[in-house]
Amino acid sequence: MNTDKRVQKLREVMDARGIDVSVICNFENQYYFSGLKAITYSRPIVLLVDKQETSLIIPSLEEEHAKAKTRVDHLHVYHEVKSKAGQGESYTEHFDALLSRYPKGTVIGAEFASFPVRLEQIARKHGADLVSIDKEIVDMRAVKDEQEMGMIAESGRLVSLALKHSLEHAAAGMSEMEMDQFGTRALFMEVAEKHPDATLDYFVMSPSGIERTNMPHVFSNTRQLKQQDIIIHSRQVGLNGYRAECERTFFIGGATEKQKEVFKVAQEAQAAALDFIKVGVTAKEVNEVARKVIEKAGLETFVNHRTGHGIGIGLHEEPSLRYDNDLVLKPGMAFCVEPGIYIPEVGGFRHSDTVILRENGTELITEYPRGLDALVFGGVKQEV
Amino acid sequence: MNTDKRVQKLREVMDARGIDVSVICNFENQYYFSGLKAITYSRPIVLLVDKQETSLIIPSLEEEHAKAKTRVDHLHVYHEVKSKAGQGESYTEHFDALLSRYPKGTVIGAEFASFPVRLEQIARKHGADLVSIDKEIVDMRAVKDEQEMGMIAESGRLVSLALKHSLEHAAAGMSEMEMDQFGTRALFMEVAEKHPDATLDYFVMSPSGIERTNMPHVFSNTRQLKQQDIIIHSRQVGLNGYRAECERTFFIGGATEKQKEVFKVAQEAQAAALDFIKVGVTAKEVNEVARKVIEKAGLETFVNHRTGHGIGIGLHEEPSLRYDNDLVLKPGMAFCVEPGIYIPEVGGFRHSDTVILRENGTELITEYPRGLDALVFGGVKQEV
Repeated sequence: MNTDKRVQKLREVMDARGIDVSVICNFENQYYFSGLKAITYSRPIVLLVDKQETSLIIPSLEEEHAKAKTRVDHLHVYHEVKSKAGQGESYTEHFDALLSRYPKGTVIGAEFASFPVRLEQIARKHGADLVSIDKEIVDMRAVKDEQEMGMIAESGRLVSLALKHSLEHAAAGMSEMEMDQFGTRALFMEVAEKHPDATLDYFVMSPSGIERTNMPHVFSNTRQLKQQDIIIHSRQVGLNGYRAECERTFFIGGATEKQKEVFKVAQEAQAAALDFIKVGVTAKEVNEVARKVIEKAGLETFVNHRTGHGIGIGLHEEPSLRYDNDLVLKPGMAFCVEPGIYIPEVGGFRHSDTVILRENGTELITEYPRGLDALVFGGVKQEV
Repeated sequence: MNTDKRVQKLREVMDARGIDVSVICNFENQYYFSGLKAITYSRPIVLLVDKQETSLIIPSLEEEHAKAKTRVDHLHVYHEVKSKAGQGESYTEHFDALLSRYPKGTVIGAEFASFPVRLEQIARKHGADLVSIDKEIVDMRAVKDEQEMGMIAESGRLVSLALKHSLEHAAAGMSEMEMDQFGTRALFMEVAEKHPDATLDYFVMSPSGIERTNMPHVFSNTRQLKQQDIIIHSRQVGLNGYRAECERTFFIGGATEKQKEVFKVAQEAQAAALDFIKVGVTAKEVNEVARKVIEKAGLETFVNHRTGHGIGIGLHEEPSLRYDNDLVLKPGMAFCVEPGIYIPEVGGFRHSDTVILRENGTELITEYPRGLDALVFGGVKQEV
């Protein structure tokens, strides 16, 4: 990934706003600007970007990892072993030392949504002024370059493949988690073959039954699929950190008449939004196209989330396809389009697909049939 | 989970320190005090606990989930759909409104390690004073009750089972991710059978080869295992949110003489620490026992992390088994014991096991043989 170019762009923003040093605490933004992605942040990591140099404060056990994956100018390693006592023992100690190099009145750009009070107090101690750079970073990340779009598109192919395998193995008597495994296994085999030395993020959830499909965000659990169940199978795959999403609402055996009706409305709402989304329209116009379909069917009261969201390093990121977002969509943006309808006693209904907006048109990068006929399963339960 | 008891204990801490309201932003602490665990926090969630009531600020799509999983007194839902415009559109709006109910000079307890500047500014606007409650919450979480210990122990059984399946299928020609899948599949089948309606977290990484085993924390990737490879297979499983960890260093085919030597030192360091850890000793004494073994072998320079860490809701949590931690270990604490040695050109060496300290003794809750003879694999590659 070309992190140099991104750092350069951040410095242009800093110049324009009179910011001397940016402090990046958000994990996704750290990956975006440095290339370092840790498996856990229980040992904190902080990235500093000033006009000349980049510095990464990291725990000792990320040192080799950071050397291999990043091009930052300086690593400031903190230690937790006796033999290194006194050589930097915490991230706050390094942060304090780094800030002491700047004069009073230094302007720090920070992500106010995540910059913690603990670091703010150190910044204040050094007489620094804080300004928010949340929006600037969101705006940068929202427009992807060719390499990023390529990674997202390949993740789209992979997530579609995984989804297909889970759906086509679904059967009564199988737990949500077991069903998930069919797709995950297929995904792993495909990635192992096609992408040596890649890193893979994946997320999957499959709430099943009327009650659980009404909760848009729950972990898959051990509930067993039953005849006539409604299920929302939801997947994201991130190849080398760049994600795509595909989701289908489906049935075991068949659906009730009421479920068929609502399914059709949700499908049409998504189709209308997918058909409409393109460079030059606003985010809220995309939302409105889907909302109108649902309103016309008299189901608007059962909508509890926006029509969609940006995707990239984040599993949800800006721009939001929300009723009050005036943003004009640009080439390089990527979105998940997923209007949902959730009706007590009937079920939750939502398909999601991912599109990339390019100069010369819109590219749908996920695929699986969306009509009800293609989304009734229920063969014999197989071993995972 | 008995969150009422935990909230009660938090209120005792608040009374003792003159805190009027605690604001909980850390996700793990939100789960600990409310029972709500979201699959993503891209839409922020905030928990407030005052002397009388508990309030949860949540996005609309977590509303049903929160009603099902928590016993908080008030849900303050923010919306993102046109039909609910004006009824609360963001978490900051709700936070602002909630704080306006308290008089100037209200003392807010906040987690300084995670409380973001964005919320702090709202708190300051209302004339509140902020004090840190990081340590008090860390201390509460460090001592588990019987139910928590039971969940951790069952996670120990599950993680051992998963580890066994991955190790015993490992073979040259198989990618790290494929090897991981054998254990994950076995885990899912076991959980589906034994724990209907459970939620499962799991984490697995298997850095392979000399270079990658020298990085203690990297995602499994598509690198294929080779004859004579050294591999660190690392797993955590969290049943209903409570985790246990098991890790083994192993070989495909066999090890070099130098690797055998270092393996033995790492194994002895862990055995010494596991044998020593108990109620009444200090965290640093446990660290020292392992460190001494490694120092005696002349390998201390290749140690870059502490001997172990607490575990529970967090994949790493306090108390840390670190050289400078004077804390006396108590019944109800749970630890992963995992001294590591990382030598360029030789490889990384680390086993991990989880123990629970109880009034009447120490309970080792993970199991798999630790000797080299039991940790050389390399049968024929099988289909995942």
